[in-house]
Amino acid sequence: MLDTVTRRADAEALDRADPLAARRAAFILPEGVIYLDGNSLGPVTHKAKARVAEAVATEWADGLIRSWNTAGWIDLPARVASRIAPLIGARPADIAVGDSTSVNLFKLLSAALDRAGGRKVILSEPGNFPTDLYVAEGIAELKGAELRLVEDVAAALDDRVAVVMVTQVDYRTGRKHDMAALTGKALEAGALVLWDLAHSAGAFPVDLTGADADFAIGCGYKYLNGGPGAPAFLWVAPRHQEAVSPLRGWFGHAAPFAFENHYRPAEGIRRFLNGTAPVLSMTALEAALEAYEGVDMAAVREKSAALCDLMIARVDATCGDLVTLASPREAALRGSQVSFRFPDGYAVMQALIARGVIGDFRAPDILRFGVTPLYTRYVDVFDAVEIMAEILTDRSWDQPQFHKRAAVT
Amino acid sequence: MLDTVTRRADAEALDRADPLAARRAAFILPEGVIYLDGNSLGPVTHKAKARVAEAVATEWADGLIRSWNTAGWIDLPARVASRIAPLIGARPADIAVGDSTSVNLFKLLSAALDRAGGRKVILSEPGNFPTDLYVAEGIAELKGAELRLVEDVAAALDDRVAVVMVTQVDYRTGRKHDMAALTGKALEAGALVLWDLAHSAGAFPVDLTGADADFAIGCGYKYLNGGPGAPAFLWVAPRHQEAVSPLRGWFGHAAPFAFENHYRPAEGIRRFLNGTAPVLSMTALEAALEAYEGVDMAAVREKSAALCDLMIARVDATCGDLVTLASPREAALRGSQVSFRFPDGYAVMQALIARGVIGDFRAPDILRFGVTPLYTRYVDVFDAVEIMAEILTDRSWDQPQFHKRAAVT
Repeated sequence: MLDTVTRRADAEALDRADPLAARRAAFILPEGVIYLDGNSLGPVTHKAKARVAEAVATEWADGLIRSWNTAGWIDLPARVASRIAPLIGARPADIAVGDSTSVNLFKLLSAALDRAGGRKVILSEPGNFPTDLYVAEGIAELKGAELRLVEDVAAALDDRVAVVMVTQVDYRTGRKHDMAALTGKALEAGALVLWDLAHSAGAFPVDLTGADADFAIGCGYKYLNGGPGAPAFLWVAPRHQEAVSPLRGWFGHAAPFAFENHYRPAEGIRRFLNGTAPVLSMTALEAALEAYEGVDMAAVREKSAALCDLMIARVDATCGDLVTLASPREAALRGSQVSFRFPDGYAVMQALIARGVIGDFRAPDILRFGVTPLYTRYVDVFDAVEIMAEILTDRSWDQPQFHKRAAVT
Repeated sequence: MLDTVTRRADAEALDRADPLAARRAAFILPEGVIYLDGNSLGPVTHKAKARVAEAVATEWADGLIRSWNTAGWIDLPARVASRIAPLIGARPADIAVGDSTSVNLFKLLSAALDRAGGRKVILSEPGNFPTDLYVAEGIAELKGAELRLVEDVAAALDDRVAVVMVTQVDYRTGRKHDMAALTGKALEAGALVLWDLAHSAGAFPVDLTGADADFAIGCGYKYLNGGPGAPAFLWVAPRHQEAVSPLRGWFGHAAPFAFENHYRPAEGIRRFLNGTAPVLSMTALEAALEAYEGVDMAAVREKSAALCDLMIARVDATCGDLVTLASPREAALRGSQVSFRFPDGYAVMQALIARGVIGDFRAPDILRFGVTPLYTRYVDVFDAVEIMAEILTDRSWDQPQFHKRAAVT
């Protein structure tokens, strides 16, 4: 169907018919920018901006220490959990919010190894997000386990595999795992499954409960729009909640303010908290999640697929001979992004950013464009591809300033 | 000398002569409140309030993902480190900022055990802050080490002690360890020393380098005023920086944006970072630290001692028969707080808070008052004690509403 979108007016028509169009008003989006990088850092919502200001001016400045009770800072992890729960098919009571994705992964891999009946292999993919692999190496070393990387985890399942650790959506290609199918295979093989939902939560419907998964972690600053370095989350299936994290701290204690000398893990998911959470960043995340209130995630998925299909169709039509599609062509196999390979991808992305089209470059040669149905419009995708086609065709990317590497790429 | 302060006007005179008096203007302090809890949560500075708003409105909203480079988010840990360094007698290059105190302690205890030549005992005090003990229990379990708690760590040093883990200032009594002396004894016994500076950094001069300490951690939200749950810091003596944290993540990798599959620790202190830091909370901390710019920490110490001496003298004079001093009477042995024991301390603290005097209750019976020379005035201390004496004398604390426990005490 989207092959028929050949003029900007066609894209405008799609926007007029978009049931999610009104959600865009919740976000602050700079003029002159087409933002296709919400999968790296979501934009701020009006609500989050106001709430952070209020948290500083009223809760911190006026309330001071009292705000732990009066402003409910102590309940922030639980409040944020209740907003994330419907996005991932989970109960709020099974989600802990705080720390970074890396730290949460550390806790859950440790718990998984403890629950794996003596099995010692963490099975993952060489294309998994590197920080996940680094964390796994660290915990494997501590616990005498082994990290095994294979292209096809389902095929590599054997009776030594303790836990399958996979990121549902590949950060480079956007390839999406079938969560229910892979979880089923792992469970059949007697292995546990830990899902990294960094590019899933908020991007499309996720059903951890339905898939009967064991553990999950996810990121607050991508599709959840919680702000730069927003706290992350973790989820533990109820059957594993007797596990104890090796990372212990007073917020995970059964009685934090009794100041006992020995660790007594709290009942339930709270035992996976540890230190004091960064309240300002947690507040931004809590407020940002209001943008998802009442949103039908099936509609998000449908629009996401259409936006990606449109991008692929327009690239095919305008510059398909110059770049290689790195994402699956079939929507069902993709997350909420489209990636292309181009040898000088870094310079092309810099040239795009200079023209106001913000995506990501991912080494060695990936141009990555995230679509985020709450605020990405069909015209955004249409215009972005027009600009990319120009840059590629006239080779305007090949200028010295676009080859200069910044600290963060 | 402070025994001579018997009238409010005497305290006012001390404030007029206070060389730090002008610093108070940097802080936003609510009307009608005497805040003696900056050792739990420091107040917001005008600068921090403005910077957080700017980080949201300009860096996040307008800059979006570009701000990692253009707003220098990537350098936030190093920038904050450079502001903390002069407060703790350390080089910025040896300080990593991020995560919570608990998580940082976990990293450093692991590193210490790795560097201890096979020794396996973590030596600490039963009165250490509980979360430190919980973290130590967790890492001890993972690494086959043992946590040993003794009242007198110096006397308990033997050739099995890998690392002495002590909080310099006792969170209940305010008793202050002599850092140089205890570090020296530990080093003589072949043990490493890890200092928790939660109640030290920003409270008085600290000299990690001069003491020849091995490791330190510290808190961003107490005397550093970084905001609720502000990121914490860690310090590693250069001789130990080849240690590798078991908590690994891309921000500690030698080349984070090369997305390599295997962990290669960054050179130097950056290897002790792991996940993405919460930028809004880091920004608040960075801005808050400007309040220390150009401050003579010796002057801070001198005023702190005088404020505490005044509090003790006024309590002695007005209600000394009703409470028991829990802090050392001698200033040299104290941190920057004064604590008193009272059986119904919880209710007394609630009654004080209801009258606008904010301190902390610490189980089982401690009334804790932190003094923070950048904004605490002599009249604040004078007035606070007058109110406490009233409450204790007329027993107005003994009302039902003051006995009702809140979630956070």
